[in-house]
Amino acid sequence: MTEDRLVSDVGEWGLLDALRRNLPTPPEGELWLGDDAAVLSASPEKLVFTTDVMVEGFDFDLAYCPAQSIGGKAVAVNASDVAAMGARPHWAVATLTLPPETPVDVVDDLARGMADEARRSGLGLVGGDISQGRELSISLAMIGTLPGAAVTRSGADVGDLICVTGSLGGAAAGLMLLRAGPVEAGPARRLAARQLAPHARTEEGPLLADNGATSMIDVSDGLLSDLTHVLDASGVGCKLEPAGIPVDPDLSAVALPQGIDPLDLALTGGEDFELLFTIAPSSKQQVQEALAGKTTWSVIGEIVETGRSLGDRSLDEWEDKGWEHLQHR
Amino acid sequence: MTEDRLVSDVGEWGLLDALRRNLPTPPEGELWLGDDAAVLSASPEKLVFTTDVMVEGFDFDLAYCPAQSIGGKAVAVNASDVAAMGARPHWAVATLTLPPETPVDVVDDLARGMADEARRSGLGLVGGDISQGRELSISLAMIGTLPGAAVTRSGADVGDLICVTGSLGGAAAGLMLLRAGPVEAGPARRLAARQLAPHARTEEGPLLADNGATSMIDVSDGLLSDLTHVLDASGVGCKLEPAGIPVDPDLSAVALPQGIDPLDLALTGGEDFELLFTIAPSSKQQVQEALAGKTTWSVIGEIVETGRSLGDRSLDEWEDKGWEHLQHR
Repeated sequence: MTEDRLVSDVGEWGLLDALRRNLPTPPEGELWLGDDAAVLSASPEKLVFTTDVMVEGFDFDLAYCPAQSIGGKAVAVNASDVAAMGARPHWAVATLTLPPETPVDVVDDLARGMADEARRSGLGLVGGDISQGRELSISLAMIGTLPGAAVTRSGADVGDLICVTGSLGGAAAGLMLLRAGPVEAGPARRLAARQLAPHARTEEGPLLADNGATSMIDVSDGLLSDLTHVLDASGVGCKLEPAGIPVDPDLSAVALPQGIDPLDLALTGGEDFELLFTIAPSSKQQVQEALAGKTTWSVIGEIVETGRSLGDRSLDEWEDKGWEHLQHR
Repeated sequence: MTEDRLVSDVGEWGLLDALRRNLPTPPEGELWLGDDAAVLSASPEKLVFTTDVMVEGFDFDLAYCPAQSIGGKAVAVNASDVAAMGARPHWAVATLTLPPETPVDVVDDLARGMADEARRSGLGLVGGDISQGRELSISLAMIGTLPGAAVTRSGADVGDLICVTGSLGGAAAGLMLLRAGPVEAGPARRLAARQLAPHARTEEGPLLADNGATSMIDVSDGLLSDLTHVLDASGVGCKLEPAGIPVDPDLSAVALPQGIDPLDLALTGGEDFELLFTIAPSSKQQVQEALAGKTTWSVIGEIVETGRSLGDRSLDEWEDKGWEHLQHR
């Protein structure tokens, strides 16, 4: 394949071939790609089903986001939603909207990014559709299977501990650094990778479901925003401890734009794809054992009956002070 | 809701509410919308999984395609793929890409169109995602359940009869009429409806699978194009009988652009969403009984070892004479 061929030169069938080259073969009894629909095994387990769309210029910028990252991220954001229900990613279909002047190499890179992240998540990419468009966009729909009961946003109980995996704020900082120009090795590059190449907590989600998580959501919009969804759905309040928030350790090593506090970024920056969950205090030891060797995790507060606070501040006040502003970065 | 509110005024949550208002509640044990992913029942039957994306200006034109039609058609094209495997539509998720200046009423109409067609197909719309974009686009991913074995494109045997449900060419004629200006009542409006408000053969697909169909595909690209997929996948040829092709009866009653033969349109026009299938001659009576009261159907030719002909002409010759040209209408 020469690198200057365009999408308009090869047509839909040529593009589907480019996608197919990057994908593994299906297991016995399943049929992927090439018919009206993929045929998948029956599922004795309950299913979860989710979808996410990403649009050039709105959800990513080709100036700093390589096509391979876009493909990988499209898989990761959906796999993260699946994991946040306590389910395992199983199958996905993808649609691409491509401007005719898109180089075919870009499609190859998108497919490679999707295939790599799919392999990592134990996911089969089983079908897709391509249309022309004026802007590049990618949507994925993903089916997961639930080994146990689903963990929803509505199960948080008064007295539960509020917990989160890994660290926060890195993806938002990475975006800022990428927008500012070339990113150097070390902490800056690690932060950029959190933005460009996130991975879903596909192992941790089902483990948490199996070990006492009473509610769960993935941190995609930002910790405070996503926590609000849990509190609203559960009809409860929270007391957050600022000292408990796991700020990405690389944040202290890079120069953030003036006035941005790393803690603010950890509270409001999106796309970290960590899991935010609640557990009864009695489950703490069990969770500790389940997550050992998988990821660090932190207790960041407690579920209370009413009121939503972070240290001595109300979350409402926090929101007024810049959360929405940072959200629409 | 006032009719001049825009997508940019209400944000993603307001839009999701607009979608939710139009959707039914899930059955016991399932959870639709509002969490990280929908939770669906386990499936003792095999699943099929497909997706289709439609983009403004490429797949539809808002000048003649009302938003409600776009929503309905997005459901129908996916349900048609599901039916063509012999499966029943069961669950779908949708993504919308919306320019900020889109009136909220358009989103309401899209949702209503999706909901109406979903109800008709026995389908649950269980989740979705919305992003901003420069152009309106809609993608659906659909899960179907298979009561029996899947009917693929590759099972056509030498000696099988080639058959198709309903009639052909109507949707392409409807598109021509809509592009030419306002459409009058009667045959012209019926043809326009085939373009704007297609319905999938959701009952007929599983019935054909259960009554001897050896291969099946839905007519979305055009009869000859879709038949070619079946012949290629099955490694066989065909003899088509021009007199057997079920040309849409309304085609003779409208003035088509000069030089367009109704039979050509039936052979090459896309989006009729009829089912093209093959059966052993011994299954003919059984199919007749199964489809009685559901739809008319026609035997249009026979599967042969090699060679692909329509009357005394080769399909290759046909293709050269205008099929590709009409395809890229």
